[in-house]
Amino acid sequence: MRIALAQIAPVVGDFDSNVAAISAAYERACDTRARLLLTPELSISGYALLDLLDRPEIFDRTEAALEKLCALTKGKATALAVGHVARNPEPSGRAAQNCVSVIEGGKIVYTQAKTLLPTYDVFDEARHFQPASEQRAWETKDEAGKATKVAFAICEDLWGADTVLGRRLYGKNPADAWAAMKPDLLISLSASPYEYGKRDHREKLHGEVARKVGAQLIYVNQVGATDDILFDGASFATGKDGKLVGRLAAFRESFHVYDTGGGKFEDSEDMLEDVAPSELDVLIRGLIHGIKIYFRTNQFKLAILGLSGGIDSAVVAALAVKALGRENVFGVAMPSQYSSAHSLADAEALARNLGIPFEVKPIKFLFSTMQRELAEARGGLAEIAQENLQSRIRGLTLMTLSNHYGALVLTTGNKSEIATGYCTLYGDMCGALAPIGDVLKTRVYEIARRLNEIAREAGEVAPIPESSITKAPSAELKPNQTDQDTLPPYDELDALLVDYLEKFTPVGELEKRHGNWVRGILRRIELNEYKRRQGAPVLKVSSKAFGVGRRVPIAKVWDQKM
Amino acid sequence: MRIALAQIAPVVGDFDSNVAAISAAYERACDTRARLLLTPELSISGYALLDLLDRPEIFDRTEAALEKLCALTKGKATALAVGHVARNPEPSGRAAQNCVSVIEGGKIVYTQAKTLLPTYDVFDEARHFQPASEQRAWETKDEAGKATKVAFAICEDLWGADTVLGRRLYGKNPADAWAAMKPDLLISLSASPYEYGKRDHREKLHGEVARKVGAQLIYVNQVGATDDILFDGASFATGKDGKLVGRLAAFRESFHVYDTGGGKFEDSEDMLEDVAPSELDVLIRGLIHGIKIYFRTNQFKLAILGLSGGIDSAVVAALAVKALGRENVFGVAMPSQYSSAHSLADAEALARNLGIPFEVKPIKFLFSTMQRELAEARGGLAEIAQENLQSRIRGLTLMTLSNHYGALVLTTGNKSEIATGYCTLYGDMCGALAPIGDVLKTRVYEIARRLNEIAREAGEVAPIPESSITKAPSAELKPNQTDQDTLPPYDELDALLVDYLEKFTPVGELEKRHGNWVRGILRRIELNEYKRRQGAPVLKVSSKAFGVGRRVPIAKVWDQKM
Repeated sequence: MRIALAQIAPVVGDFDSNVAAISAAYERACDTRARLLLTPELSISGYALLDLLDRPEIFDRTEAALEKLCALTKGKATALAVGHVARNPEPSGRAAQNCVSVIEGGKIVYTQAKTLLPTYDVFDEARHFQPASEQRAWETKDEAGKATKVAFAICEDLWGADTVLGRRLYGKNPADAWAAMKPDLLISLSASPYEYGKRDHREKLHGEVARKVGAQLIYVNQVGATDDILFDGASFATGKDGKLVGRLAAFRESFHVYDTGGGKFEDSEDMLEDVAPSELDVLIRGLIHGIKIYFRTNQFKLAILGLSGGIDSAVVAALAVKALGRENVFGVAMPSQYSSAHSLADAEALARNLGIPFEVKPIKFLFSTMQRELAEARGGLAEIAQENLQSRIRGLTLMTLSNHYGALVLTTGNKSEIATGYCTLYGDMCGALAPIGDVLKTRVYEIARRLNEIAREAGEVAPIPESSITKAPSAELKPNQTDQDTLPPYDELDALLVDYLEKFTPVGELEKRHGNWVRGILRRIELNEYKRRQGAPVLKVSSKAFGVGRRVPIAKVWDQKM
Repeated sequence: MRIALAQIAPVVGDFDSNVAAISAAYERACDTRARLLLTPELSISGYALLDLLDRPEIFDRTEAALEKLCALTKGKATALAVGHVARNPEPSGRAAQNCVSVIEGGKIVYTQAKTLLPTYDVFDEARHFQPASEQRAWETKDEAGKATKVAFAICEDLWGADTVLGRRLYGKNPADAWAAMKPDLLISLSASPYEYGKRDHREKLHGEVARKVGAQLIYVNQVGATDDILFDGASFATGKDGKLVGRLAAFRESFHVYDTGGGKFEDSEDMLEDVAPSELDVLIRGLIHGIKIYFRTNQFKLAILGLSGGIDSAVVAALAVKALGRENVFGVAMPSQYSSAHSLADAEALARNLGIPFEVKPIKFLFSTMQRELAEARGGLAEIAQENLQSRIRGLTLMTLSNHYGALVLTTGNKSEIATGYCTLYGDMCGALAPIGDVLKTRVYEIARRLNEIAREAGEVAPIPESSITKAPSAELKPNQTDQDTLPPYDELDALLVDYLEKFTPVGELEKRHGNWVRGILRRIELNEYKRRQGAPVLKVSSKAFGVGRRVPIAKVWDQKM
């Protein structure tokens, strides 16, 4: 059986463009005489609908889209598998189901609802969806007329044997039903978010299911992004033995045909990802993809950001240029009396290397004006007020320029500083998107070095000035300040952050492992939840990002004994 | 059986103070020789733990607290029912359970986990908790030694017959098990959030369960608040016929003893709420309670807010004075060249009426300075940039003063303007808490009039100037501007907002009901999601508030055909 995979990028709520993308892939599948076209989970409506599922229009428009797609398949030999929402036919329980349907000869011939509903981290599926109560196969014929049994999974259905914090989350596993069903083929339609290092785990785990079921597995994942969530695609197929046969590129729309007879992908104008890129390169590609899709979906072209001469803003500017084009990234340096000479020079060098529009807008006069206006009657302002004031004048400057030009501000904070609250609410936290808000400082350095290396390999100017990489990081909000005045060295801090935020290591254990400075930092993390609650969406690239996947109350007592 | 109710205000994560409050209530229950003391759901840890449940310390500290409470009951005739988290004993499924335990004679004699786990709106219980698989009764003896069977519910367990958007959410209803069990008494420990108008529905629905089970019902709810969520208490008892016997006060800590023999509450120094206050009065009490608890839990005393002379800031200032005391509310008027003379006069009158510290800080000079600095090279700033700039200079001023004084800024936006995006991100949206962010503009007027009426009834000065109530609302960001230049009249807008945001009425129906201006407003609502994502926590008082209970993607296409 020859099966086409459409690794597309559905947009939430954009039924027309999603149906157009599915239709175009279907025409292509028909042209290549594929027996079946696969599209990702919820490809008709987009995956991350969240509470849009409370709106009746989502179901009406889905039904209209399904009718259009049915019409498309009339008189064709190619069947179409699509992911879509459906109203729950039962009178009680959740209002919706997350389904895959196969459309063939003008009508829906098979529907299976999702069984395992992820309800952790960024996922809220139990909020809206009723799970399937059973697994049924699609009984069909291949091109030669031979009876063929196909089992369909929807994303999480393949993760039943996985553990989260050491536990299996589900009491049942659809893989058991498939093993009993003995299908000829196992297919998964997915919308599986990217995480650094997840691809290998996903392929290994899913390969184990294929081996257990004893069927070839074809896995289609979407690319694209919604707010925080990046989808990496990297669709793949395995043999009955669970071994990887081939993989589509990460973060690229792509179309391929897999032949189950030969057990391999056919040649295509789209490249397969034969040699796996390094995790770091996939991360870089993902961040660029996330910026691009966020701007495109929100219908903005122009990005504006502050260039401090430091590593964070340099990396964000370089990524934004790759995502949006150099003419669409506007850098603004806003030096103060506390800025060192090299800061401005580094910002200028970066802008020159990238070839982007650039402006210097010193804040010294505004800072002294604001200080005079507010401090006079008070005999001076508290130091914390003075520091934040500088950062907020910069935020105000960028926001005013963004309103003037119709641009979106990119905020350049990294995960280490957002974690510790080493950032100013309504100051450097201003922005529509935080591209590296889930990237630890130590990895920001890795990205910077790699971006320079990639440029040099391509014979281009390395974008990020060496001194931005080598100098001691500083917020420059008072004389001779460095980050390490108040924070431990970043390699130590980041190791703690991974253990605390991602691995949930007990506090006593953290103290033993890292030292007695741990409690002060943990206290900072918890006390600064109020800032993060009002932070820009962060592109999620780790197993636990700040944002919708981490829900921690502000008004709490974080007990010192923890 | 004489049963004591402790309507307390547990704080999330504050095990020591929660255990102290439970212990104090237990001593009091022993003094009154009650057979049993009831405390609210999850009273040991606080209810809204959210992802703190991923931290192992929560379980360790709960176990330590339970040991302390066990020790307390040694040799006493009074039993103690407490709500607490527990580790799920099963190897798969969610890691935690939400439990009630009865402690008696130094040990836990009964435990029941929660069965129905709310996973909608602000609730995420399926994210962390494994549901109970069965209902068991506590078989005990009353004071006279007579065998007594008690069934325990935890909050949502009593809501099994309720409908949300016309559907029953759960396939099973614990009330069926209790009806078969025939207990002598049905008890519910709850953490049930406040909503305008919810109390009557709650009492009616729970009364129906009591009648179905054929047992008296004693219902204990917490007061207090966590971030967005207010808990109203209003604990109550019903007879076997489901009829209300008596109710504790809303939003007040309170201790009462109910005698199941006589079927009534005993006299107490705390007042029962014999005559139900109006919904409006409960709402006002709730908003005051929410402000008070938010400041107390976050350990702040001083509030600062901008006074525009308009109705919203006047109402927030008046509520804050009742919550924090007049000396702790600092009002700042920040007039510009577009401010009318009456605006400043109204702000001054308000501050005088309330007797709060007050300062006038004109923004004209800062506005012209910023404009000159940013507009010069551009031949003037776009109008939207100029309008937002004024609002952001005010936000910056308030934030600088709040940093200087160690205060929290209250943002004064109402639900109507937050819905339509009639507010400036990092400008008037700056703040730690949005006390009236879930109150529609038309109700803000009702609150203003009622606050004045309450003051007059008490022989005090009515706080809110009449002209703040009667004049046309305006943002005053350009000459002769009023809200109704760009928005429909507030009574029409608010009626639409209720239908769209709270009732999920289809768009076609909205257009028929309200007129063809509807689509433009709906588009505004959806396009402004990015502002709300970075907004301050809103005190939730409706069935659907902006914030954690409404999850809508930013990057979406809100189709015009919807």
